[in-house]
Amino acid sequence: MDPTDREVACFEAGVKFGSLYHQFAGTPVSPASADDLARAMAAAIENQPFCRSVSVEVDAAALEADLDAEYGYTELTGRHYEAEVVVDYAGVEVVSRMAMADGYPHMTVESVTED
Amino acid sequence: MDPTDREVACFEAGVKFGSLYHQFAGTPVSPASADDLARAMAAAIENQPFCRSVSVEVDAAALEADLDAEYGYTELTGRHYEAEVVVDYAGVEVVSRMAMADGYPHMTVESVTED
Amino acid sequence: MDPTDREVACFEAGVKFGSLYHQFAGTPVSPASADDLARAMAAAIENQPFCRSVSVEVDAAALEADLDAEYGYTELTGRHYEAEVVVDYAGVEVVSRMAMADGYPHMTVESVTED
Amino acid sequence: MDPTDREVACFEAGVKFGSLYHQFAGTPVSPASADDLARAMAAAIENQPFCRSVSVEVDAAALEADLDAEYGYTELTGRHYEAEVVVDYAGVEVVSRMAMADGYPHMTVESVTED
Repeated sequence: MDPTDREVACFEAGVKFGSLYHQFAGTPVSPASADDLARAMAAAIENQPFCRSVSVEVDAAALEADLDAEYGYTELTGRHYEAEVVVDYAGVEVVSRMAMADGYPHMTVESVTED
Repeated sequence: MDPTDREVACFEAGVKFGSLYHQFAGTPVSPASADDLARAMAAAIENQPFCRSVSVEVDAAALEADLDAEYGYTELTGRHYEAEVVVDYAGVEVVSRMAMADGYPHMTVESVTED
Repeated sequence: MDPTDREVACFEAGVKFGSLYHQFAGTPVSPASADDLARAMAAAIENQPFCRSVSVEVDAAALEADLDAEYGYTELTGRHYEAEVVVDYAGVEVVSRMAMADGYPHMTVESVTED
Repeated sequence: MDPTDREVACFEAGVKFGSLYHQFAGTPVSPASADDLARAMAAAIENQPFCRSVSVEVDAAALEADLDAEYGYTELTGRHYEAEVVVDYAGVEVVSRMAMADGYPHMTVESVTED
């Protein structure tokens, strides 16, 4: 069966989240560089089609806990930030989110709204 | 409004596609290494939750056209392969696909089927 | 034969360049987001051991030439920027650079200087 | 001062290691998919200029220790594999290696040999 606009909008939101996560996983990150990275991540993914907004918020405590004792940085992974992606496809708005749950980063669809 | 199972299944399919694309974009690839890469890409993404199968098929002509004249390789991008991702979430099967259209790789939902 | 400090310093410079290039290859980039990305790339790699400074300069014309006609962005590759990496290892300073030559991005060691 | 052939060869080895590490950091990996990934990683980097051979060996115990309890996979990082990169530049052979030391993956130059 063909997908509805709501379903395609959810697919598009998922594409943005997979892109965000896997493009930047492994990036060297420290408390000093984290905000620049978060801003660049959001701005990069906002370029993708149907993407209205992306926000990336670093969890300073989670980042601090993972820092290399000698060099003061670590590699970015889902423990270190939360993110929100809003997609607008054919008049359907999808709000999706990534946050930690049970020790792992979970990506979820929060709402699907038609104009 | 809360998402339906069909909508979450589409979101999950999107996550797999974004992950596949952006984890491996930029990988050095040549005719000799392309099949190993395609197999590893599929196997990697199949690890993700709710992912039933992934297939990646290299377009040998498109790859050949992009090879560096001196060193015989290029960097993987969406022009070089087609992919199919099948997700199964809560009894909903989503078949999604990436292929070239108008000179760009497009990711689309092909079907959404409930048991 | 064991490497000298100068040789290890050059190895370290190479590690930074390979990291810079392949961490960010494929990132969605547009004229509007390019400066944020360049800043984040430099700040990320400066976290690595023995790295004194990194600068990334976007080539606006090269980026413009690659933009998707419909969505106004492209995927970052070596054509779109030049970079300089300075490493300091055991009193040896290595200046290395990436720039286009013969249609491809080339990474080179510009100087190796001992205190 | 201009770099010697030995120094450039070490730089090239570093480039390969940085590429290997950051292209694949974050890839979903499980015991079932790890060997395909290791083979593809080696084959990808062997495409790069002056690269004679790459070997990637997964540390099965380290991988097992990091698996997500629910989904049975994790994201690839330097804890999960050792690697050797051999570069041949202008008659200089560099053997370099990545292995764990003090809880972190360390990349080192093992030998630099002229013909």
